[in-house]
Amino acid sequence: MFESAEIGHKISKAEFREQEPDLRERLIDAQSALRELGKFPLLIIIGGVDGAGKGETVNLLNEWMDPRHIVTRAFGEATDEESQRPPMWRFWRALPPKGKTGILFGSWYTQPILDRVMRNTRPADLIASIEEIRHFEQMLVDEGALVLKFWFHLSKKAQEKRLNDLHDDPKTRWRVTDKDWEHFKNYNRFRSVSEQMLRETSTGNAPWFIVEGADANYRHLTVGHHIISALEGRMAKPRVLPSVAAAPRSPPLDQRNVLNVLDYSASLSKSDYRRQLEKYQGELSGLTRSKSFRKRSLVVVFEGNDAAGKGGAIRRVTAALDARFYRIIPIAAPTAEELAQPYLWRFWHQLPGHGQVTIFDRSWYGRVLVERVEGYCSEADWMRAYHEINDFEEQLVRNDVTLVKFWLAITPEEQLKRFTEREQTSFKNYKITEDDWRNRDKWADYEHAVCDMVERSSTNKASWTLLSANDKRYARIQVLKTLCERLEQDQ
Amino acid sequence: MFESAEIGHKISKAEFREQEPDLRERLIDAQSALRELGKFPLLIIIGGVDGAGKGETVNLLNEWMDPRHIVTRAFGEATDEESQRPPMWRFWRALPPKGKTGILFGSWYTQPILDRVMRNTRPADLIASIEEIRHFEQMLVDEGALVLKFWFHLSKKAQEKRLNDLHDDPKTRWRVTDKDWEHFKNYNRFRSVSEQMLRETSTGNAPWFIVEGADANYRHLTVGHHIISALEGRMAKPRVLPSVAAAPRSPPLDQRNVLNVLDYSASLSKSDYRRQLEKYQGELSGLTRSKSFRKRSLVVVFEGNDAAGKGGAIRRVTAALDARFYRIIPIAAPTAEELAQPYLWRFWHQLPGHGQVTIFDRSWYGRVLVERVEGYCSEADWMRAYHEINDFEEQLVRNDVTLVKFWLAITPEEQLKRFTEREQTSFKNYKITEDDWRNRDKWADYEHAVCDMVERSSTNKASWTLLSANDKRYARIQVLKTLCERLEQDQ
Repeated sequence: MFESAEIGHKISKAEFREQEPDLRERLIDAQSALRELGKFPLLIIIGGVDGAGKGETVNLLNEWMDPRHIVTRAFGEATDEESQRPPMWRFWRALPPKGKTGILFGSWYTQPILDRVMRNTRPADLIASIEEIRHFEQMLVDEGALVLKFWFHLSKKAQEKRLNDLHDDPKTRWRVTDKDWEHFKNYNRFRSVSEQMLRETSTGNAPWFIVEGADANYRHLTVGHHIISALEGRMAKPRVLPSVAAAPRSPPLDQRNVLNVLDYSASLSKSDYRRQLEKYQGELSGLTRSKSFRKRSLVVVFEGNDAAGKGGAIRRVTAALDARFYRIIPIAAPTAEELAQPYLWRFWHQLPGHGQVTIFDRSWYGRVLVERVEGYCSEADWMRAYHEINDFEEQLVRNDVTLVKFWLAITPEEQLKRFTEREQTSFKNYKITEDDWRNRDKWADYEHAVCDMVERSSTNKASWTLLSANDKRYARIQVLKTLCERLEQDQ
Repeated sequence: MFESAEIGHKISKAEFREQEPDLRERLIDAQSALRELGKFPLLIIIGGVDGAGKGETVNLLNEWMDPRHIVTRAFGEATDEESQRPPMWRFWRALPPKGKTGILFGSWYTQPILDRVMRNTRPADLIASIEEIRHFEQMLVDEGALVLKFWFHLSKKAQEKRLNDLHDDPKTRWRVTDKDWEHFKNYNRFRSVSEQMLRETSTGNAPWFIVEGADANYRHLTVGHHIISALEGRMAKPRVLPSVAAAPRSPPLDQRNVLNVLDYSASLSKSDYRRQLEKYQGELSGLTRSKSFRKRSLVVVFEGNDAAGKGGAIRRVTAALDARFYRIIPIAAPTAEELAQPYLWRFWHQLPGHGQVTIFDRSWYGRVLVERVEGYCSEADWMRAYHEINDFEEQLVRNDVTLVKFWLAITPEEQLKRFTEREQTSFKNYKITEDDWRNRDKWADYEHAVCDMVERSSTNKASWTLLSANDKRYARIQVLKTLCERLEQDQ
């Protein structure tokens, strides 16, 4: 794989000078066009061996292009903020919005490669990382990003020479660290692990470009040419999205489903409710103040029919929590900033740190519910969303998050009663809109979408709790009880 | 994930009888249309818990449809033939050609799930299996297949009841084996492992349909309806293939590449040649007759410029081998039978068993060489081929195959000399065709394709050996020597 980057590629100074002005102009032009178009981001990932000139070329790119529209990010040790969240969180924060360019200097590739080189992980772990990366990049590409990945390579001899040269010159000695020499000792392992990683993650959608790093002129021009040709190519012909090969399932033939088999007569007397409310709120309060929770987080998703009582249930939860440590995120139509990013971005953005709680009033499931039913996204988009959501939730659960997902279900009759009541009660009037009535007309479509959602996203570790909410008291107690149980399990 | 298959779905006998005739007719019609169209195969995979009625429904499908155009295959213990080859070999052999229907009863899912349930493998191994399956199915879909996967589920209670019922009836007692009860003891683990497997492999292109198995009428009709709606849907609208997001690399800016840096002056005197020929042929003969080779296989790929001397080199290799144990596969344009299958199919078909050698005179690399350059396949096709080929070769190497890949390189001048000589020598005349001259005109395109190929498919375990073949004697000895070295390494 690296053969072609070990044959001494070289561009003379004269040729470099001759080619540079034209390349710069085309880069600047393409960058403006990208910005004006505003349809997709350009994401450039730079990796490779130490001393292969990554920094130099990144700096030159910033010089060649308009740096105001480039976000260059390097990643060192994780900050406190970062280490309390799934490893991918820092990278989600660094994604460029549509129309902009992001240069990631070090990336999601760095840690899995080093971990395997240093034998902190096993071969199968590397494969798992590779697949996570493939899924993640596929998602970026499906969401529109143009992803270009450059690997700067040096042969073993060339790396040794480069490190020695840098070290011998007093002006550059500071650039060679002990870590660099330690990595060099592992050159062969590094080469072999990187090779597997690159090979497996070099897809048609996000291919690696391997660049010999020894000669700066060759390296700069090669990277510049790849960027410009990919960018011009992408702008010249619009992307074609694949069709979904197999149709999604139709509703069950016998009309039974997980929603209509719920027991909608379940209810609780006022006194039972008061007693249990106190009990479970007390428990919840204790659990979220416990020592073990200081190393964990809680994410709660509330979904449900319109007027199912999400707001009321959420208030019964937060009453038990310390206001400094929770946040409620009501999900409405996305903002312009949010629309310029992959759809999961705004949810990643809101992930709690340790000891904290985030409550989503509606959530990422909008993709497979309202967006599916109302046709706000294509069939291919919502079909792939199940998998993307599962990947997302798996990362949460694997990284010390207790994730609880509620669907509050009411019957059509109960909803009608509540809608009418809302219309007739002046202080509840704001709660009922045209949209609510319109959604109600699509009851069957939503029901079908909810059942598909449960089937495709209820997992052992992130199961859906489907609750009959015809009786609000019953539903609220179930919510509190479930939260306590799940927190206890994860303690 | 299984919630909706544990709620007691049921279809009455009367309703079943009412629906069946129409469903049958539509299935038969769609099956004929599929055959007449001849554009893609229908692949149905049936999995699930024991006793959930898999056999019953498969039999009924064969009754409903025209069984002459269905290939139903079940998979038990591996045969001798199968156990000497990569695990996927048996499944490749069972793939239906375009226009036909294949029903796989048990499949590539069975072993990874059971291995994990029985704790023969670790969690990371399961993830690796999942990803292999995803790649494989993606390839099938990219090659055109309509893949439908059904998982027949029973709740724990329902499975216990079903097994007891079968056991209590003397007529069906034989159907309940000790293995079934042993699996039942592991019900919870089986459920949780299957859930992960299904969730991760349920993609937009090849989704799982989970079917509650307890009621036969519901199960039959549900499967029938899914098949017919997917099949009719696919025939109603042609598949849209995605565009490639990022352009493939252009040739290096400085025109240096792995081919033109080879030393084309390398040569061998006649006497040196004779001496070394004898030496290495002797070694090779010994290595392929050794005890350790009885548990291994050898696959050799010969690619190279036209007139580079592949045939001559192959003859020097086979002279050292026992004719009973090797096969030479010359790769020409695919036959009709081969065209009805994914493009790697014909190569899988030819894999050697233990103690055997297969020599490919040209190979699967045709996809990224001639098919790319001549435009016989789309850019998306050959871009994905690198990855598919790497997956394929990895399976070989992981399963006791020594894989050696040669590129015999000659210079344009040397080729011209040989072409002219062939034209002027009557008994070599057949060796030179119009095609050869045409290919020669595209020298630069081929060179670029070869360099991309080496960059993207030369791996630690399946590296390319690039040989200067301007001197035939030198090249032949290098071939023999490399084979000996690689066989020795793997011993």
